[in-house]
Amino acid sequence: MSPLYVRIAETLVQQVARGALQPGDRVPSLRQLSRQQHVSVTTALQAYIWLENRGYLEARPQSGFYIRTPFARLIPEPQFEAAPGKPTALGNNAVLAGIIESAADAANIPFGAGCVSPELFPNRRLNLILREIVRQRPLHSANYEFPPGVECLRRQIARRALASGCPVSPRDVVITNGAQEAINLSLRAIARPGDVIAVESPAYFGILESAASLNMKILEISTHPQGGMDLDELERAIKKHSVKACVIMPNCHNPLGYVLPNSHKQALVELTARRNVAVIEDDLYGDLAFDDPRPLTAKSFDRKGLVVLCSSSSKTLSPGYRIGWVFAGRFQAEVERLKLITSMAAPSLPQWVVAEFLSSGGYDRHLKRLRAILAGQVETVRQAVFQCFPKGTRISRPAGGHMLWIELPAKIEAMKLWRAALGEHIGILPGPVFSAAGRYKNHIRLNAGIVPSDARNRALATLGRLCQHRA
Amino acid sequence: MSPLYVRIAETLVQQVARGALQPGDRVPSLRQLSRQQHVSVTTALQAYIWLENRGYLEARPQSGFYIRTPFARLIPEPQFEAAPGKPTALGNNAVLAGIIESAADAANIPFGAGCVSPELFPNRRLNLILREIVRQRPLHSANYEFPPGVECLRRQIARRALASGCPVSPRDVVITNGAQEAINLSLRAIARPGDVIAVESPAYFGILESAASLNMKILEISTHPQGGMDLDELERAIKKHSVKACVIMPNCHNPLGYVLPNSHKQALVELTARRNVAVIEDDLYGDLAFDDPRPLTAKSFDRKGLVVLCSSSSKTLSPGYRIGWVFAGRFQAEVERLKLITSMAAPSLPQWVVAEFLSSGGYDRHLKRLRAILAGQVETVRQAVFQCFPKGTRISRPAGGHMLWIELPAKIEAMKLWRAALGEHIGILPGPVFSAAGRYKNHIRLNAGIVPSDARNRALATLGRLCQHRA
Repeated sequence: MSPLYVRIAETLVQQVARGALQPGDRVPSLRQLSRQQHVSVTTALQAYIWLENRGYLEARPQSGFYIRTPFARLIPEPQFEAAPGKPTALGNNAVLAGIIESAADAANIPFGAGCVSPELFPNRRLNLILREIVRQRPLHSANYEFPPGVECLRRQIARRALASGCPVSPRDVVITNGAQEAINLSLRAIARPGDVIAVESPAYFGILESAASLNMKILEISTHPQGGMDLDELERAIKKHSVKACVIMPNCHNPLGYVLPNSHKQALVELTARRNVAVIEDDLYGDLAFDDPRPLTAKSFDRKGLVVLCSSSSKTLSPGYRIGWVFAGRFQAEVERLKLITSMAAPSLPQWVVAEFLSSGGYDRHLKRLRAILAGQVETVRQAVFQCFPKGTRISRPAGGHMLWIELPAKIEAMKLWRAALGEHIGILPGPVFSAAGRYKNHIRLNAGIVPSDARNRALATLGRLCQHRA
Repeated sequence: MSPLYVRIAETLVQQVARGALQPGDRVPSLRQLSRQQHVSVTTALQAYIWLENRGYLEARPQSGFYIRTPFARLIPEPQFEAAPGKPTALGNNAVLAGIIESAADAANIPFGAGCVSPELFPNRRLNLILREIVRQRPLHSANYEFPPGVECLRRQIARRALASGCPVSPRDVVITNGAQEAINLSLRAIARPGDVIAVESPAYFGILESAASLNMKILEISTHPQGGMDLDELERAIKKHSVKACVIMPNCHNPLGYVLPNSHKQALVELTARRNVAVIEDDLYGDLAFDDPRPLTAKSFDRKGLVVLCSSSSKTLSPGYRIGWVFAGRFQAEVERLKLITSMAAPSLPQWVVAEFLSSGGYDRHLKRLRAILAGQVETVRQAVFQCFPKGTRISRPAGGHMLWIELPAKIEAMKLWRAALGEHIGILPGPVFSAAGRYKNHIRLNAGIVPSDARNRALATLGRLCQHRA
């Protein structure tokens, strides 16, 4: 865990990121801050010095500390370029296995990983619950928990779905082995081999690979780094290519980081509903949106049962539990059937543990803390990249999650950078894996969910140097 | 757990089932048995009375107890009828969901279930290991354990594979979410939509459904209740239909219960290898063969990397852990890739627990005990069925596992019997779900893995009565 003054400083960074504090605003005096936060004046001073060093604050003599225009606002974001695609049969991505392997190698600084640092999960509390369940139900895993899955977990998930605007019942939930299986089953329930699936561009490679492995064709729709899928292009594509389903990530997009405005979600759902195109909504990072309360889902605008929401506890509680779920709307029975004949059941014990964690009220406290930490880390990694990377680098400005999407100067090849970084024991994800059409050759995705450490900071500096050599 | 005298009696039943004791053999005197087993003479007497009541022993005055021709040998087995099939696109089996649901309903006597009674798993020891791992590795589930999966588990599985004749290394193993996912991934790695998959007949419905959901066509090969797939027919089918893969269960076949002779396994592997047809071997119940040592796998005769072995710990340790694996031969890289993009990873904690259980040596002891129990239960359920069911009923004679395949008199419709049994809170599996071609309309599968109880025995009597009404 970071020192106290860093945590206090990061709360303030988060307020700046949200716009609650604007450039020119005066922040509390040291004495006020010390009273508000119940810390010593020295700790308050350390927090302000940390913030000053990072360009968030300026000290004006005899007057106090003021928010300055943060570097954040000065950092250019990735460019948007409309580039309508064609349905593509993604080939076997031989590189992907190597990339995942390197991302998973514990010897590497995990800027390529899809998860936050292990210590950011509520491990201690989960273990307490786990032990208690093993004590109370010694036969916890001596049965299959057949689809749709453990009832008390489905009830908790349905209860929480209300907060994102989805009035689903426990009967509308199917438990899966993580969100990846949820997406896979949804694709199979909705589409057939040869069908066209519209995706964002860039899109999470797991979606591209999943559709490709089912012999479906992928159509990338131009996607704005803050505004999401280009709806006009989507509509034209639906008319032209008889699209069967559209996979989107409107909340905390991976890798772009945006949270779409509700009006945009609604417009997309209405557009697809008019043409009877199903929508698979990946809400995996939805609970990690920095703003409170968490954003509505596209599913909340679904009137025809055509939106299928997939999510999991992998990004907020435990990737190793493999607990995901799907609200499959009109595809519910088929998803449930496919779950059974694809992998029989989800693991039993983790279902009980997650259910208990969700019902015990600890989840909201944990989320609040995790979101604040991630908002701070995302901002500090952005700053570090801005400072270390070559001129012309553009960095996404996420509204949630912990991914940064970085557009490097055009001549830097992400695949080569990936290999060079591996040589320095740094894992990153190269842009091309986020496209079926071979785009994003000079982009990378960085995981900002790694807790601050000298090793992390050195790795960022090294990455910057590797880029500078190539710029 | 059964009373001591029943356990002693069932050991003897097992010896009879194996042929170690033959009709006419004299068994030890009460005094000898009491000394051998370290039990009182009263307990020995109880065991012999139990056996006498069930027709295994006859008491000859002044001479002792003798094995009689057991009912087992008098029970007719299901008939074999060669019936070459055509490649079939299995439709959506709407009934299957209901069947699974009823099989999973805890209120029903689970003769339809695929698992032994929960108390037959080594739950206490697994829980001890689990607690210890949680203590030693508090971050056990805070990471993905990406394919191929946890190394120490793969090492243990590879080590044990030697006993079934497979010299695989840990690198040849991919951990999956149970055997069902292993089969699914293997089918996808080997075949494409539209390809023909040869299967046994009857075949486990999970295989049929899995292939069908991947838009593959199913070709049922006539299968002898003791001799397995008809190899001549298989060879003709391969020539005629360009079969892509062949799914077999040579050890403890589900539902037929046979263990194929090694010569037959070898012939099948050589036949398919000559024609470059892949073999998916489902070894799920292989460790539950009644004879010791356990039988060789078909994979052990593989010289070309064309045999893919799928198995799991679901039938021997814990169905709820969802730990399966695959030795994918030349399809290894593709199975690993598909595992990643289909469900990302197997659950972490169960991988550590199973690895520790396998390495600590408790597994062989547990298997020995479980196999003896199942051999006894299978035999007693066979006898009960023979006594309660109508004349003309034929019952399989399993060499392992805990399934009985029952051929009822032709006019009894299994689907109707299934519904009637449900009305009496008894789950069974109707024969038609074991065929893509609509066969086995008068067959049912019974799970003999349920520990003896009055409720179980009453349920068998009720099933018999329901059949008598229809005969």
